[in-house]
Amino acid sequence: MDMQAEIVAVGTELLLGQIANTNGQWISSQLATKGIGVYFHQVVGDNHERLKSVIIQALERSNLILITGGLGPTDDDLTREVVSEVVGKKLIENEAVLADIKDYFNRTNRPMSENNSKQALVIDGAVVIRNPIGTAPGMLIEYQQSLIVLMPGVPSEMKNMVTDSILPYLEEKYQLNDVIESKMLRCIGIGESQLETEVKDLIENQTNPTIAPLAADGEVALRITAKASSKESAKQLIETMETEIHNRIGQYIYGSDDQKLIDVIINQLKKENATIAGAESLTGGKFADQFVSIPGSSQVFNGSLVSYSNSAKINALGVNQATIDQYGVVSKQTAYEMAKQAKRAFNSTYALSFTGVAGPEPLEGQPVGTVYICLYHNENDYQTHTCHFSKPRNIVRELAVKRGLELIYKYLK
Amino acid sequence: MDMQAEIVAVGTELLLGQIANTNGQWISSQLATKGIGVYFHQVVGDNHERLKSVIIQALERSNLILITGGLGPTDDDLTREVVSEVVGKKLIENEAVLADIKDYFNRTNRPMSENNSKQALVIDGAVVIRNPIGTAPGMLIEYQQSLIVLMPGVPSEMKNMVTDSILPYLEEKYQLNDVIESKMLRCIGIGESQLETEVKDLIENQTNPTIAPLAADGEVALRITAKASSKESAKQLIETMETEIHNRIGQYIYGSDDQKLIDVIINQLKKENATIAGAESLTGGKFADQFVSIPGSSQVFNGSLVSYSNSAKINALGVNQATIDQYGVVSKQTAYEMAKQAKRAFNSTYALSFTGVAGPEPLEGQPVGTVYICLYHNENDYQTHTCHFSKPRNIVRELAVKRGLELIYKYLK
Repeated sequence: MDMQAEIVAVGTELLLGQIANTNGQWISSQLATKGIGVYFHQVVGDNHERLKSVIIQALERSNLILITGGLGPTDDDLTREVVSEVVGKKLIENEAVLADIKDYFNRTNRPMSENNSKQALVIDGAVVIRNPIGTAPGMLIEYQQSLIVLMPGVPSEMKNMVTDSILPYLEEKYQLNDVIESKMLRCIGIGESQLETEVKDLIENQTNPTIAPLAADGEVALRITAKASSKESAKQLIETMETEIHNRIGQYIYGSDDQKLIDVIINQLKKENATIAGAESLTGGKFADQFVSIPGSSQVFNGSLVSYSNSAKINALGVNQATIDQYGVVSKQTAYEMAKQAKRAFNSTYALSFTGVAGPEPLEGQPVGTVYICLYHNENDYQTHTCHFSKPRNIVRELAVKRGLELIYKYLK
Repeated sequence: MDMQAEIVAVGTELLLGQIANTNGQWISSQLATKGIGVYFHQVVGDNHERLKSVIIQALERSNLILITGGLGPTDDDLTREVVSEVVGKKLIENEAVLADIKDYFNRTNRPMSENNSKQALVIDGAVVIRNPIGTAPGMLIEYQQSLIVLMPGVPSEMKNMVTDSILPYLEEKYQLNDVIESKMLRCIGIGESQLETEVKDLIENQTNPTIAPLAADGEVALRITAKASSKESAKQLIETMETEIHNRIGQYIYGSDDQKLIDVIINQLKKENATIAGAESLTGGKFADQFVSIPGSSQVFNGSLVSYSNSAKINALGVNQATIDQYGVVSKQTAYEMAKQAKRAFNSTYALSFTGVAGPEPLEGQPVGTVYICLYHNENDYQTHTCHFSKPRNIVRELAVKRGLELIYKYLK
């Protein structure tokens, strides 16, 4: 059966321009990976009549209608009621969902207010999608030749349901046979334009698979996308292209798909039975956060000392006052002492330090974006790098961390 | 005349999820400032029949239709042709526009390709909007009781036209004297449904100003929106409602509009000439990052010790081995010692500590989402809190930080 998908986002805040319809974008990108064509997006406010008219019209031109938002506990959350009206099915309280909601409030130690029980109402005959991280359940409703999917508007809850329940349900129900597979090759240490030059001819002659260079968060990647009748043959197409790309830029590729540079580094450290620690000034905990965001990283990450004030660098970390006086806090020498002291304080194999000028104002006569990074192993084995990022404050802080990770990755490789 | 606006974005890349419809968001926010109500957004691909059906339908329910995209030089740019079909007017070459386009290519030293002259075709009778920074002109087309506005999809070109030509045109043509002002009241320490209950009657009886509860990132807010003939009277309407809301939930309101909780806390600390430091386990630097992300925070934020491994808690921070052995690392007692040691290490006025189970696995028999936070001032003045967040790992970590900030804010208030 040929799927014609339409995405409806419900919420007056979207029509007032307070937020963009990123739910519509994300759902579209997910359906694309399954070869499901999306032909329309609509946004409508929290208004009974207009919402109803939009859903009725969607049913006339599409056979897969995905609706986000309007499932909350408040009176202006109308999606549940309107859809039950359109499909002519009653709303009935669902025991299991009510239990989920009560349990949710117990778990989070918050009082459950009366109107939350409204969220336990589901459309008669709907397949209910439980919500492990929120209170509004999702629903799958068959109506005439169409399938209506209801999802919360909260992105994290919506994404959970799409990935865990809705896509698998669609795959099985409609035996989606044109499979679209894609693989991301993640690179570090090469710029976007250089990357493009290296694979220019491949991009120009692309048919199937296609190749797209992407740049984000100070990294570049190549996405290979293949379409075929089976997962296997799609993967085969990708593999052939991947080999060709590896022959050209293999030394810059650190991983693939959702693999992050930090995952690779954690594995490198585990292989070595080594540990690492940090000393952070301008990065202010962002280096530590990279490790702690990954479960199980405590095996290789001891900790980080965020010494933002100079007194903290001297008293809490142990940098020499004299070093700061002589060379300045933004200097190779201070970076070196920060890393050395971090290794001592956390008793780790390696330590990485960051000191620099995040801005908006220059510091010690050094321009915004100047960052010194030191990777310290021992007195005979350490390296200090100077970087210049001409970006706003919080981007400079992120790029500094990214560069630091690149140094560790290359060192351990 | 009552304007009913609808925004149509044309482009297959939107339906593939490659980009979000930020044009729709931006135009909505601009129309809101003029008191023009936007009731629908639609996104449609570069397809003749579907684009035509969308425009016809928009004309049935809206009297101001703003269309972005599909005015480029290539064959899949169809907006120009489709609209001329719908309104039954010919496309005619516009001398001035053609000159603009030639001039544009001269200025930018690029060869003008044949198909660019297609962009000089305008709908007969349309008011043409010249494009100083691109090649596609905009158009204003009167049709029956409606006005159709065509704009390029390139955000910078579209924004130029809206600001310089389209809004002024609408203001004059429809004598728009209504101004819409809105103010966000930001709350902490109250849930969305409780907030809703507190102001239920205000929301039910709302006319002008209107009130909308919003929830994001573990915070809730109330948006007050007023419509009036002048900025002043709109602000007056908001102020009256704001007073009423303050009488009910004033103790939960920490700030307004773009103000962040961290900004308020930094100001509270500056007023006291106080400093703060952190000891972080599961939050892994996210607490420190809140402060360091704000310029000038070094005046009140000394630093934070991210002690992720137990050895770091003991050796780098100075928590007693015995305390961890007896009560566990995830305990009130460990949180207390972490905060106390952080105050010592950073010589700060206050210290905040975080220890807990981020997941995915339980720890020491405690469920994922259990977090202990201690706010330490001195031996006679400290408080420890236990929280339970049943969310994924990195959401738990963010909510823990948010709760910690809430504790500081309330303490300093």
